Amino acid sequence: MATRPTLGQLGLDTGKKARLHRILHQHGLRNGTALFLPYDQGFEHGPRDFFANADASDPKYIVRLALEGGFNGIVLQIGLAEKFYWDFAGELPLVLKLNGKTDIPSDAHALSPVHASVADAVRLGADAVGYTLYVGTPAQEQDFVQYRRVRADAQRLGMPLIVWAYPRGAAIETKGGKDSFYAVDYAARVASELGADVVKVNFPHPKKQSGVPDQYTATFSSQDAIDAVVRSANRTMVLVSGGAKAGDDAMVDKARQSMAAGATGLIFGRNVWQRDHDESMRFVARLREVLAKYDSAP
Amino acid sequence: MATRPTLGQLGLDTGKKARLHRILHQHGLRNGTALFLPYDQGFEHGPRDFFANADASDPKYIVRLALEGGFNGIVLQIGLAEKFYWDFAGELPLVLKLNGKTDIPSDAHALSPVHASVADAVRLGADAVGYTLYVGTPAQEQDFVQYRRVRADAQRLGMPLIVWAYPRGAAIETKGGKDSFYAVDYAARVASELGADVVKVNFPHPKKQSGVPDQYTATFSSQDAIDAVVRSANRTMVLVSGGAKAGDDAMVDKARQSMAAGATGLIFGRNVWQRDHDESMRFVARLREVLAKYDSAP
Amino acid sequence: MATRPTLGQLGLDTGKKARLHRILHQHGLRNGTALFLPYDQGFEHGPRDFFANADASDPKYIVRLALEGGFNGIVLQIGLAEKFYWDFAGELPLVLKLNGKTDIPSDAHALSPVHASVADAVRLGADAVGYTLYVGTPAQEQDFVQYRRVRADAQRLGMPLIVWAYPRGAAIETKGGKDSFYAVDYAARVASELGADVVKVNFPHPKKQSGVPDQYTATFSSQDAIDAVVRSANRTMVLVSGGAKAGDDAMVDKARQSMAAGATGLIFGRNVWQRDHDESMRFVARLREVLAKYDSAP
Amino acid sequence: MATRPTLGQLGLDTGKKARLHRILHQHGLRNGTALFLPYDQGFEHGPRDFFANADASDPKYIVRLALEGGFNGIVLQIGLAEKFYWDFAGELPLVLKLNGKTDIPSDAHALSPVHASVADAVRLGADAVGYTLYVGTPAQEQDFVQYRRVRADAQRLGMPLIVWAYPRGAAIETKGGKDSFYAVDYAARVASELGADVVKVNFPHPKKQSGVPDQYTATFSSQDAIDAVVRSANRTMVLVSGGAKAGDDAMVDKARQSMAAGATGLIFGRNVWQRDHDESMRFVARLREVLAKYDSAP
Amino acid sequence: MATRPTLGQLGLDTGKKARLHRILHQHGLRNGTALFLPYDQGFEHGPRDFFANADASDPKYIVRLALEGGFNGIVLQIGLAEKFYWDFAGELPLVLKLNGKTDIPSDAHALSPVHASVADAVRLGADAVGYTLYVGTPAQEQDFVQYRRVRADAQRLGMPLIVWAYPRGAAIETKGGKDSFYAVDYAARVASELGADVVKVNFPHPKKQSGVPDQYTATFSSQDAIDAVVRSANRTMVLVSGGAKAGDDAMVDKARQSMAAGATGLIFGRNVWQRDHDESMRFVARLREVLAKYDSAP
Repeated sequence: MATRPTLGQLGLDTGKKARLHRILHQHGLRNGTALFLPYDQGFEHGPRDFFANADASDPKYIVRLALEGGFNGIVLQIGLAEKFYWDFAGELPLVLKLNGKTDIPSDAHALSPVHASVADAVRLGADAVGYTLYVGTPAQEQDFVQYRRVRADAQRLGMPLIVWAYPRGAAIETKGGKDSFYAVDYAARVASELGADVVKVNFPHPKKQSGVPDQYTATFSSQDAIDAVVRSANRTMVLVSGGAKAGDDAMVDKARQSMAAGATGLIFGRNVWQRDHDESMRFVARLREVLAKYDSAP
Repeated sequence: MATRPTLGQLGLDTGKKARLHRILHQHGLRNGTALFLPYDQGFEHGPRDFFANADASDPKYIVRLALEGGFNGIVLQIGLAEKFYWDFAGELPLVLKLNGKTDIPSDAHALSPVHASVADAVRLGADAVGYTLYVGTPAQEQDFVQYRRVRADAQRLGMPLIVWAYPRGAAIETKGGKDSFYAVDYAARVASELGADVVKVNFPHPKKQSGVPDQYTATFSSQDAIDAVVRSANRTMVLVSGGAKAGDDAMVDKARQSMAAGATGLIFGRNVWQRDHDESMRFVARLREVLAKYDSAP
Repeated sequence: MATRPTLGQLGLDTGKKARLHRILHQHGLRNGTALFLPYDQGFEHGPRDFFANADASDPKYIVRLALEGGFNGIVLQIGLAEKFYWDFAGELPLVLKLNGKTDIPSDAHALSPVHASVADAVRLGADAVGYTLYVGTPAQEQDFVQYRRVRADAQRLGMPLIVWAYPRGAAIETKGGKDSFYAVDYAARVASELGADVVKVNFPHPKKQSGVPDQYTATFSSQDAIDAVVRSANRTMVLVSGGAKAGDDAMVDKARQSMAAGATGLIFGRNVWQRDHDESMRFVARLREVLAKYDSAP
Repeated sequence: MATRPTLGQLGLDTGKKARLHRILHQHGLRNGTALFLPYDQGFEHGPRDFFANADASDPKYIVRLALEGGFNGIVLQIGLAEKFYWDFAGELPLVLKLNGKTDIPSDAHALSPVHASVADAVRLGADAVGYTLYVGTPAQEQDFVQYRRVRADAQRLGMPLIVWAYPRGAAIETKGGKDSFYAVDYAARVASELGADVVKVNFPHPKKQSGVPDQYTATFSSQDAIDAVVRSANRTMVLVSGGAKAGDDAMVDKARQSMAAGATGLIFGRNVWQRDHDESMRFVARLREVLAKYDSAP
Repeated sequence: MATRPTLGQLGLDTGKKARLHRILHQHGLRNGTALFLPYDQGFEHGPRDFFANADASDPKYIVRLALEGGFNGIVLQIGLAEKFYWDFAGELPLVLKLNGKTDIPSDAHALSPVHASVADAVRLGADAVGYTLYVGTPAQEQDFVQYRRVRADAQRLGMPLIVWAYPRGAAIETKGGKDSFYAVDYAARVASELGADVVKVNFPHPKKQSGVPDQYTATFSSQDAIDAVVRSANRTMVLVSGGAKAGDDAMVDKARQSMAAGATGLIFGRNVWQRDHDESMRFVARLREVLAKYDSAP
């Protein structure tokens, strides 16, 4: 429906445009779409995420997977970026994830502390930084304060800023939950209002309506919902997240609907590496087929 | 009743006077009154505010509306200002709203975190900055601390400071509520005591008297109340807010009473853009008719 | 009883001595005593304090009153100082009140946030700064931290520091209350231990004994109590506060006892301006009569 | 038992050694022992501590007492140091106490905020600074953070750091209480681990055993306990505090046991000045007799 | 199983590599393994830890023990490092422990405040710094914030960073407890994701399964568990902690399993010095026998 915004329409400074051009037009399908491999689950969930495929515990295996799979970038926390990106530096864009947390304590006042700076990303040759913003958390004051510093540094250093816009916290649980259409739509808008260059969202669930505002209690299809989310993001490019591992056909369908809505790309982790190497490659090939249909001019 | 203060009476530094002159005498009716279009509701309330008129979800549509309607300025958060003001830079004054929050978590300890600096406003060519001060919130310590930095920066950079003086928080709920005469009157005074150049207030409701101090339990007309609020603001110029969408005649009446009381102008958002384009223009025309009667010398 | 300390005995730096000399010997009665007009009640209590005399809502009226009444200084918050002191700059010493708060939320953890800097006071030509210290508040850590910065800046810039030493908070309520002899005596001492040049106290009530330490449960006259308070303040000059409006004879009596105890002066607001202009002048004349009896050498 | 550490064994920087030499070998008995007069009780407890001897309310009286009594130093907060030390500057070493609090609010989360800097101590010609560390308080994070800054400044400026190591807070109350052997022993060790040059402790009570770890439930004499405490302090010199006023013989006995254990000296306030002048002098003479027996080389 | 990473594989900056080389190849067995003596228990637990062997209370005794036992380094807090390392400076690598706390208040929101800087470590000639990270604590926001500064300083100054990765806090108590396989495995991974050069872990207990995620409820041997932990640490070198004193054979067995799993070394304190001198030496000899079997190239 909506057309994907091209880089020329986003009012970007030179450094941000140069780096996003590298990601979108010099890697992956080189057609303006993007497929990212996130690898911070060992931090966010712990090593249990690697029990399904023990190889996935090794960061080197994952970076290689991203290269072989023709991804547009890999997402790492500072520790793994410093220890494992050197081997492949320059071969694959690096997105340095700047904040993160364990899932051990309660999420009721969720906040994701910053572990690295935009200057670290520059030092490591990264092409973008990632920041998790917990939209709706009671700790939003602290979250916004640290986000503001990241945004200002990214602006100053010409570094594209990808915001993981995640509804979270006690209040959102009583208003539809974290992947309701209401919550995801609001989160996409917040990222745009606060200056994200790219926003990562979960796929919205229009049927989760318990406690949501009236406007979201009508009947919406999945396509209606993702269309609205992309519209709410306006000139912020949208990446749709894979989330926990699910059936391949369902995932590919989500991908298609997202791209049809005007998303710029996909960011799939566990769905990719929680299986053996060759299955991973086969699944990635199906995602690339979808993306190939959405060529956009640089 | 009271006379609107002219720019010469406010003890303004040169930069503030220059920018306010631009807003009040070189845009809109160019007669010293002001009509502002605020557009941060996608952040403060979420995209649900755009369901009444889907076009309003698009910031470009809104900026155009402000231009066509002859507004004195548009109010945007940093993200939309960076992405959408470039197209119209200089054609319309920009008020960069520096703080804001979602309405997802509880408002009992309301605080509106800062997302951008006065220096960002300078960089973007804005003519004023906006700050929401939650008067009476239990979080007033933090609020005042961040407000102080904004005020000092605005003073240093000659940037007019518009304070959204909003009574809010658990205590005010037991003392008349956030739009009682008592609460609005106090809020206007606080903005003036703390150095706002312009204060945005809600229209006061003199009948909301439950829990207010004795002095506010007498019988007051709406006109009495708004007169008092403007007096409490003394040399701080007053903008009266439209609030949620209501009947046109009632809104125009509020506008008249406000200007009669000595307010400098109006700041109406949802009442303007929660309807289709031509209806918006017709309503704006009625507001301009009111403002046209209150010419004041520069 | 005690003799008022003279400026030469206080161990003051040059700048502080110069400014206090201006206040005590070049304004008011020019005899080393002081009468101050505080005007921050619109912030601390809200505009309701002006309902008794509507003129008092206008800061210009108040500054004029201070001039006509021969006060030694007027106390204003930053906003009113910037907007109204210019008209009379130099004619009357300005005390810039640096912190303050509304009385809307609970006082159980009272803290008065800082709104302006000592440097602001210098910029505006003020001759002293004021700081409210809530002695005994559970928030004393934060209070002392911000007080420390003010004290250090005042020391560096040669600016006299007047401390509003106000017992406040949940604990003091169970130990005699905020104007008990115990609480006021302790507060005066704290101001002295922490480097105040001048301390403003409420008049102590020796009969409020519920919950106070044993030492304060004996029988003390008012004069005993205020004598002790001035002694506890040692080389910190004492100003006694008028508080809420009360009968004129009672107020003048308080003033006499305070000066007899060795206080340097009075700081009366609502008792002065919550009546019409001529009554205000008559009451001020009575206070000046008291002060005239306590001439002290420079 | 243990030998008092000499200055040469403490690994001190030049400035610290110079200042401690001045205190220990150029004042008092000039034999390497120390007797300090603390005078911050007007802040920590309020003026009630002066009701036993009204003269003690006057800081000038106290400084004179310290001079006449041949003390090695007087301990003052910033306000009294600025107002009263000038008269006697250089005649008697000054210990600037950097933090302190009132005893009005609850001590359950005890924290002693900082009121002056090490640089203030340098400016005033002080020979040491004092810091109260509330060992075991639930607010230990904040306490350690502000302590760290003081320690670093003291190291940078060559200023000896005396730590008031006081077990305090809700948890310690259930583990033997603030003057149990367990608590005092732990506190002495913490001061040593965290870099105190000198530690001030209360005399330990080995019979307070309710809730203490097993190791402290054996039978210990007072001498055993103070021996252990001095050993735990290792190369941090120990001062034993007098505490609230008690019988003279008991106090002198404590002093003897402390010095026998290897303490460097005593710090007695209320036991000294809560009596009339001549009695004070007689009591001080008895303490000096004890100290005279523990000559140590510089 | 896993091979120990060599220094050349870790992507280390020059300064870090130089200092780790000194520790691993120029002290101890000089074969790339490590045996550290930690001595901060007087702070973390109090002097009670020294009751089993009174000599151990004296830091000088401990430093000598480390030298005689051929340890690769001794771990001290700032106070003891400043007072006792001078005597042996250069003879034995120093690990300056940068944070720590008492065990007096509750651990439910565990946080270990920072007491010294990486710059202090440089000043004292240390070859590494230590930081305790309480993985899973509800205070993780504060913990990560202070950790981040330490990591950045260590990176800037080329100082190896050893992270004590300790699961702790109310939530972990309900998820297997602090030494469950789940908790230790997660902690090792977090240290690696956040840029530790070396991680110190407790030996994991695979039978503690109450409340752990499903993946950890299968049957695992001790060897399985420690293998997994070392794998989760990937290119972060692993040190296994001795913990409270236990039987010698059991301890030596732990050591063997750890080294077989690919750990780089051991860090044993109480098991070493809570016995008399000669017994200590005999036990250390057994540990060295184990380490001698795991020679690795520099």
